[in-house]
Amino acid sequence: MILETADQLEARLMEIGAERYHNNHPFHHLMRDGALDKGQIQAWALNRYYYQSRIPIKDAALMSRMVDPELRRAWSQRVVDHDGTREGPGEGRGGIEKWLHLCERLGLERTYVVSEEGVLPATKFAVDAYVHFVRERPLIEAIASSLTELFAPKIIGERASAMLARYDFVDEDTLSYFSARLTQAPRDADFALDYVKAHAETPTARDAVCRALIFKTDLLWAQLDALHFAYVEPRLAPPGAFVPVDQ
Amino acid sequence: MILETADQLEARLMEIGAERYHNNHPFHHLMRDGALDKGQIQAWALNRYYYQSRIPIKDAALMSRMVDPELRRAWSQRVVDHDGTREGPGEGRGGIEKWLHLCERLGLERTYVVSEEGVLPATKFAVDAYVHFVRERPLIEAIASSLTELFAPKIIGERASAMLARYDFVDEDTLSYFSARLTQAPRDADFALDYVKAHAETPTARDAVCRALIFKTDLLWAQLDALHFAYVEPRLAPPGAFVPVDQ
Repeated sequence: MILETADQLEARLMEIGAERYHNNHPFHHLMRDGALDKGQIQAWALNRYYYQSRIPIKDAALMSRMVDPELRRAWSQRVVDHDGTREGPGEGRGGIEKWLHLCERLGLERTYVVSEEGVLPATKFAVDAYVHFVRERPLIEAIASSLTELFAPKIIGERASAMLARYDFVDEDTLSYFSARLTQAPRDADFALDYVKAHAETPTARDAVCRALIFKTDLLWAQLDALHFAYVEPRLAPPGAFVPVDQ
Repeated sequence: MILETADQLEARLMEIGAERYHNNHPFHHLMRDGALDKGQIQAWALNRYYYQSRIPIKDAALMSRMVDPELRRAWSQRVVDHDGTREGPGEGRGGIEKWLHLCERLGLERTYVVSEEGVLPATKFAVDAYVHFVRERPLIEAIASSLTELFAPKIIGERASAMLARYDFVDEDTLSYFSARLTQAPRDADFALDYVKAHAETPTARDAVCRALIFKTDLLWAQLDALHFAYVEPRLAPPGAFVPVDQ
């Protein structure tokens, strides 16, 4: 498909999301339907911590490649959102701290989560691929790889309402990470979408933007594949991986 | 465990191999036992091609970090083994060409294999993690990550004899890649083992060597996890992945 205009690019990006975003993954369906046990949700939160922890590293790498101060200023809000403005819980806490709070409420030891021991190697390979992609690919592709945030509000809403409704170990406070993301993700996604629409000026450049989004959907999908394989079916966790507690 | 001597290091490396090398993976057991169908072996060969194709890239990256010409000369044989001394089949063909020959004998189109379309994203993330590791980590860890070749002859022998005995679409010529590796791998492994034994001079350095080998066993294991998940159980191949033919 030859993408002649910015609007055709936007339409194609939406199609990619509809087809490939990880809200279509069986593991997400199990979570949405309340069919995961506590140990499986622990495994998800533990592995997802690794992803969360690398997002500001990814964004800093991206900023290091931006020559325009205005662009860096706009992008730097993402790092602040994840790292917060001060250490620990309370006012100014960032997304990583909120995620650690979620992990603790799920019964995981904070020091264990932060140690990154027990994280599935496949999670690390997929997440690290994201950091390397952003370091190595042309800037417009690096920015385009963030466009999965266009599709985030739907999956966040499904996760949060299912977890509140079906798991008695989850409450609104546990899910504070998600409530913040519901406003942050659309703001970030709109910025990145406007950028790629304005800067991808040829069909070839628009195709590269689409491929960057596919790369990103692949790495989110691969993370759920690895969780599903290790903790749902056939439950073959690799050597050294987290073993659920408090089942 | 504190590794006080080079011999203790060697013993620990052997333990890691015994515990974590992918000859222990259920997917390998299915292959060894002749329980995989042709489509599953096609998926394995297609994905493994991506690994093969990146090995000389990994070795070139490693050589680019070696200051000692003697070390580069010794290591360069690995690149020759994979790339060959001339294009195409026949005298001087390298390991990649032999692997493509295997893929063709399994009924895969050469152009499709080389296109890398259909390769599982998880395969790419794991293999690319190897290339990045070798580029970024200290030289001794980069060398240590090649030490899985210590354990290669056993798995090669099991694969080759099972494939010859149980699959009528496989013959000796199909498996020429493996026969060459049976002499190349021990030569390379002995060189790397001597290097890390001589150059890891503290318990901390020996521990780093062990962690590099664990990293490598993890990425081999993750490749079989992904194949098993997509093509054996629960057979949930991700969007865009290879669909077996000629079942």
